Amino acid sequence: MKDSRYDVLTIGNAIVDIIASTDDDFLIAENIKKGAMNLIDTERAEHLYSVMGPAIEASGGSAANTAAGVAGFGGKAAYFGKVTDDALGKIFTHDIRAIGVDYDTAPLEHTPPTARSMIFVTPDGERSMNTYLGACVELGPEDIDEDVVSQAVITYFEGYLWDPPRAKDAIRLAADIAHRANRSFAMTLSDPFCVDRYRDEFLELMRSGTVDIVFANEVELKSLYETSSFESGLEAIREDCRIGIITRSEKGSVTVTRDETHVVNAHPIEKLVDTTGAGDLYAAGFLYGLTNGRELPDCARLGGLAAALVIQQIGPRPNQSLKAAMEEEGF
Amino acid sequence: MKDSRYDVLTIGNAIVDIIASTDDDFLIAENIKKGAMNLIDTERAEHLYSVMGPAIEASGGSAANTAAGVAGFGGKAAYFGKVTDDALGKIFTHDIRAIGVDYDTAPLEHTPPTARSMIFVTPDGERSMNTYLGACVELGPEDIDEDVVSQAVITYFEGYLWDPPRAKDAIRLAADIAHRANRSFAMTLSDPFCVDRYRDEFLELMRSGTVDIVFANEVELKSLYETSSFESGLEAIREDCRIGIITRSEKGSVTVTRDETHVVNAHPIEKLVDTTGAGDLYAAGFLYGLTNGRELPDCARLGGLAAALVIQQIGPRPNQSLKAAMEEEGF
Repeated sequence: MKDSRYDVLTIGNAIVDIIASTDDDFLIAENIKKGAMNLIDTERAEHLYSVMGPAIEASGGSAANTAAGVAGFGGKAAYFGKVTDDALGKIFTHDIRAIGVDYDTAPLEHTPPTARSMIFVTPDGERSMNTYLGACVELGPEDIDEDVVSQAVITYFEGYLWDPPRAKDAIRLAADIAHRANRSFAMTLSDPFCVDRYRDEFLELMRSGTVDIVFANEVELKSLYETSSFESGLEAIREDCRIGIITRSEKGSVTVTRDETHVVNAHPIEKLVDTTGAGDLYAAGFLYGLTNGRELPDCARLGGLAAALVIQQIGPRPNQSLKAAMEEEGF
Repeated sequence: MKDSRYDVLTIGNAIVDIIASTDDDFLIAENIKKGAMNLIDTERAEHLYSVMGPAIEASGGSAANTAAGVAGFGGKAAYFGKVTDDALGKIFTHDIRAIGVDYDTAPLEHTPPTARSMIFVTPDGERSMNTYLGACVELGPEDIDEDVVSQAVITYFEGYLWDPPRAKDAIRLAADIAHRANRSFAMTLSDPFCVDRYRDEFLELMRSGTVDIVFANEVELKSLYETSSFESGLEAIREDCRIGIITRSEKGSVTVTRDETHVVNAHPIEKLVDTTGAGDLYAAGFLYGLTNGRELPDCARLGGLAAALVIQQIGPRPNQSLKAAMEEEGF
């Protein structure tokens, strides 16, 4: 394999998060699916913002959070995702570059505006997202930089990209480029409702070998295989991809290959504050480990460490240095 | 005194904060006065943002934080301050209204953009602010709503308003209206360098009776009277206004009138994270108490409680309910 310029390239919906606390009654009154990513249009976005409490803003986007996490560990990361050259687009671009991720996707000049997700965090720490896709609907094959893909050890994308119309074409192109360069291609299933929308296509991506590595949480795994049995899901995903990584919140994670199974405990936490970014940062730690010569159980531990840090704060990217945390933990 | 629609009206620079962690070497390299509010122009703003690490955004502005704090305690609050009808202006407007503050200052339609302050937080928790005033330079007497001023028990403004060109005229007008309605007028000295810029004018405001109540921290007090003695400063401010409230960080606060002195300890904290908003929230607690029938020492305790909450988190307005915290503390 030729030299790699990047450990990990990630591709996703480029989003700024608008985060506020609320209670469960509010979610019910506003008909927000708890714990899920709810897609919303302009009108709904305006309504929800008008009833939302005081908020803070932070750059987000699932795969962008993962790229930021890889860079936070000291890895070499790049990102593709579409913003508009507006105030939120400038914030998104600043933040991802400032943490050291190479990000050069051409922004839109005018409309639609940069995507935003209104995230409501309930007292149990669960986050419920309401995403207006805005500029993300314009991501397409023309945004795939062949040089970057072919020089990334792993290219990773979020299942959420099946929502905008042309991103899936971009992903299929990127997968072709990656495999021609003998690189690996990875995805996250993103969200159980997202799996429900695109189950057959996700299974086809895995079974055709387009995707080599799959991240999912337990609910997404069960949704993918339409089973209530975690064990059945594990056995199925083991056959459908090269590495399957299943996160189980406080129960830790399970990594499976055709013939290996690694169960790793969750990293201990003091207080769950906001689960936003948990899966994204888990993937960051795992992918950083995998592209830096770690064994699978250590990859899972690095994922657990990053997830533990991000869920003890408000916002989707850790406020503190992942590299320092990793060193403190003796990695 | 006729019925009051508001406990507290505050007037200030309407600002969105952009907050990032850094170290002391960065402040030195970038020539940022530590712990101070540094005024910057467009070019400097662009430079600092280009070298700033990943950030989060949160509505700020000293007097706006105080209004938000009063509302957070359950008080009736209003705010005057100038934004532009742009993305940051919409965020500012949403957040202050969402916490229950009446805010209706007419926004600018185009330029200059809404003010922003790049705030660098060092490992010791100190914040160093770099403020681009933007739309705030347009605040003037035409923005003073006489009805609101005359129906607020206390109108409070930030000394920072002496930086934009026409806000001082707005403040003098508001003071006239307030005093004609037999209301009280209060200010914060804001920042030791701000005191240095406007010392004579601030002293004139106090000695002429334009301002009845003055908030300052120890450094600002010493700067005002150009003394190194805290005691001399206390004796001086006691003569120059009806109530002087001096905050001393971990040493608590001292409240003086012509013939009373109340020393109150700081509220205990677990971990200092970010001092942004400490003085603003202290003023909020104090003013909420004062307008809701509390004795001066209890006003100081409520101020200390609000300050303690805001310095244990990132961002200038408490993430949690001040009303609930006050009740838990037995007030």
